[in-house]
This record gives sequence, structure tokens and C-alpha cells, in this order.
Amino acid sequence: MHSIILFAHGARDPEWARPLQRLREAVLARRPEADVRLAFLEFMTPSLPEAIDAAAAVGATDVAVVPVFLAQGGHVRRDVPAMLETACARHPALEIRLQPVLGEAQSVLDAMAEVVLAG
Amino acid sequence: MHSIILFAHGARDPEWARPLQRLREAVLARRPEADVRLAFLEFMTPSLPEAIDAAAAVGATDVAVVPVFLAQGGHVRRDVPAMLETACARHPALEIRLQPVLGEAQSVLDAMAEVVLAG
Repeated sequence: MHSIILFAHGARDPEWARPLQRLREAVLARRPEADVRLAFLEFMTPSLPEAIDAAAAVGATDVAVVPVFLAQGGHVRRDVPAMLETACARHPALEIRLQPVLGEAQSVLDAMAEVVLAG
Repeated sequence: MHSIILFAHGARDPEWARPLQRLREAVLARRPEADVRLAFLEFMTPSLPEAIDAAAAVGATDVAVVPVFLAQGGHVRRDVPAMLETACARHPALEIRLQPVLGEAQSVLDAMAEVVLAG
């Protein structure tokens, strides 16, 4: 089974996660059979390691970790690879793949530019 | 003159601002006559008040402030209105408008979902 983990920063305000939940729904609307989970760096749960454990527990064979960040900062460059290394060691049969940061995709930037101008 | 200020969090790593610069270019590609500026909450310059001052200095009559955040957290809900209030007092002739957070637009979430699945 293919799992997708949408990994975001997190915030103290529970409302902050709402667009992430909407992103999860948008992914599921396109691929209803996928196992799509949220994970957070801080303030919110589950953590990325917890989400990977949960995906493995329900029988995932591969996991795509998608950083839902606007840009690749220190969190994505340093913290995520370290977490994934630990997760790989815990789940040697699981293929874990790190996708590029979402905010750097040209199609996402183009969609943002259109919204800026629709204002 | 119409100014657009793309307001983002900022980070210690100068590379972090690159997608923001690409967003600015994507907006300018669609509206070359617009005055489009970046501004940052922390770690990077200019600040939002500085960017508004700069827009006013080059003759802006109205400014659209666009929070380039994934979700509306404390920064956008508390810090930005306070900064805009001060800026309005400094520039009474300038019309300053706060647009919704970019990451909450459905078209942006849809573009992200497509990128997630394109892997």
C-alpha cells in the first residue's frame, strides 16, 4: 500500500491545520485509495516519525513524505533527513521517499500568482 | 499606482526567499506595470512597515498586502493587523488592504494536490 504523508510545520492554534486537512481531502479526492496522513514538526501531532510508524502499522509498503512548506529552510534540510534516517532503521522493509517542498513547484507558484492578482 | 506586497515569514537561510522571489516574478509576468515587493516578518528585510513606506515613497495610492503563508496563524491574525494600523496612521492617504492568506485558496490547494500526486 502506498502512503502519502503531508508534513507541515504546525502551530499553537488548532485552526492552523485546516488548510492542511483541506489539502489531504484534495489529494484523496484525486486518489481515494491512497493512505494520506498529516504530520507536524511541532505544536501538533502526530510527529513525522509517529505518522511513518502508523503507516507501517496499517501495511504501507512505501511512503512519500511531502514537505508542505513554502520554501526549503533548515527544518526541511536538516531535521527531516535525520527523522527519515531513524524511520528507515525502524522499518527496514518500508521504502521512504522525500519529495521536494511543495511551495517551490512552479504550478503552485503560478496558482498563487493568480490568487494574488484576483485579490 | 497600485502596489502589491508579498508578505512572508522569513528565515535565517537567504535561499529561503527564492520561491518568494519566483512568486514576485510570476505576478510581474502577469501584470508588468504593478509595483510588487517582498516583505518579511523576521530574519529578512524589508519588514512590512518598511515595504509600505517604500511603496508610499514611490507614489503608491493603494497597497494590497498578501500574506504568503500556508495558513492563518497568530502572525497573520495578530501581528499583521497591528502593523497595518500603524502604517495607515503614517500614510493616511494610502489605501491599505489585507488579502486572505494564500495557502487557504482552493486553487492553490488544488495545485499542491496535483504536485503531491505527480510525486
